[in-house]
Amino acid sequence: MSVSARPSNFGTRFHNHLYAALGLDFVYKAFGVQDIAGVVAGIRALGVRGCAVSMPFKEAVIPLLDELDASAAAIGSVNTIVNDGGHLKAFNTDYTAVQLLIERHALNPDARVVLRGSGGMGKAVASALRDAGFMRGVIVARNEAAGRDLAARCGWDWQPTVPDVQDGDLLVNVTPLGMAGGADEHTLAFTPEQIARAGTVFDVVALPSETPLIVEARRQGRPVVTGLEVVALQALEQFVLYTGVRPTDEQVQAAVEFART
Amino acid sequence: MSVSARPSNFGTRFHNHLYAALGLDFVYKAFGVQDIAGVVAGIRALGVRGCAVSMPFKEAVIPLLDELDASAAAIGSVNTIVNDGGHLKAFNTDYTAVQLLIERHALNPDARVVLRGSGGMGKAVASALRDAGFMRGVIVARNEAAGRDLAARCGWDWQPTVPDVQDGDLLVNVTPLGMAGGADEHTLAFTPEQIARAGTVFDVVALPSETPLIVEARRQGRPVVTGLEVVALQALEQFVLYTGVRPTDEQVQAAVEFART
Repeated sequence: MSVSARPSNFGTRFHNHLYAALGLDFVYKAFGVQDIAGVVAGIRALGVRGCAVSMPFKEAVIPLLDELDASAAAIGSVNTIVNDGGHLKAFNTDYTAVQLLIERHALNPDARVVLRGSGGMGKAVASALRDAGFMRGVIVARNEAAGRDLAARCGWDWQPTVPDVQDGDLLVNVTPLGMAGGADEHTLAFTPEQIARAGTVFDVVALPSETPLIVEARRQGRPVVTGLEVVALQALEQFVLYTGVRPTDEQVQAAVEFART
Repeated sequence: MSVSARPSNFGTRFHNHLYAALGLDFVYKAFGVQDIAGVVAGIRALGVRGCAVSMPFKEAVIPLLDELDASAAAIGSVNTIVNDGGHLKAFNTDYTAVQLLIERHALNPDARVVLRGSGGMGKAVASALRDAGFMRGVIVARNEAAGRDLAARCGWDWQPTVPDVQDGDLLVNVTPLGMAGGADEHTLAFTPEQIARAGTVFDVVALPSETPLIVEARRQGRPVVTGLEVVALQALEQFVLYTGVRPTDEQVQAAVEFART
């Protein structure tokens, strides 16, 4: 199941599609909730196998659980609970997914990170980069307190606006800029001139799958990491944690396409 | 959803089949549970619309709820919870189903009731009969405390064994005698000689749909009320409470047949 103040359909469609494709006896349901302690009591009492946790419960849920996996402990934020016979273990598959994407795209840790955003997902992405050896970085955030906090956690700098981009910088967008339906859906988190100097452009926005930032980066021939990759990979990691079954890439791809429609 | 120490598949199959047939956006799941307080906390936190309650929680759940419908208050036993925006109201659709069957079969309240059994379902059936005007009755139960308690509640008598049956008696079986797979699956709760004098034979055992008692009663041309009627009607009443939609008799029949296979 999943809990959130404002649930989306993605997880429900993704997981149920794979259960059917793989013939697994599970059912997935999303809930809009307010009382996270009641939710955890319900998970325990009903023996619910797993639960995705979204805003605004990712930190508040921690004291209600029994164990933190390294992925959740690394950033003090939970997006996945697994119930093993009444023992609730917390994970953060956003963090895990970014770790895996760093490997998959062979991102160079000598590059400087310029990351826009300072929310929960920003923390997951910045921490995964830092823990993968990215020693130099700038957190760009209008919220100075959150920005400085995240920068300090990573040993990076904070700035309120995007600094001069250096050749080879890893540009990362973890704001809603470019998100379909948002107020800034046509806004680029980085200018074409900044993109031109980037080593890689990483956009965590997953809707649309080709954000204006990704479109511009591709146009300039820059390597990209997309939000769709993050979404698909974190959902896959949740699926494996819940079921113990790892679907094929083709099955995951089909489930993602089904879930996004 | 439903909760029970040992959940069966009937409710899950019945309700999900009707949701699909009627195009309703619900999903039904059965849970095996031990902590009923945690269950109710979960119902509240997750906003679960309804919950069937089985053994051994039908009485223990009462102090956790907000309101008792007359059907639950009549017997101090709950088998159905409906959640209206956080307000949990309790019902007993077994009681309601028996009430409706008394009407449907035009059972004569002047008849004496001879009822074998003193458990939760025995209480629902005896109370529904008593509240429909059956003033004379005998509770037949080996458990003297439970038998006397139920008899006192109805203003009836208790006896440890079946008394001499009088012409026109309503014979009711609410024990597992005759239940498929049980130790006494070939045992008749009432003898052929007792059945011969009965006004009506009512067997609450629903599996098989034609119990040895019902088969014998039909063979003798006695009017019968079957456990399958109780099961189908109480499930239908739950369905209406949960969804606000009343399916046709044909839809209910199809769902019952699907659920029993």
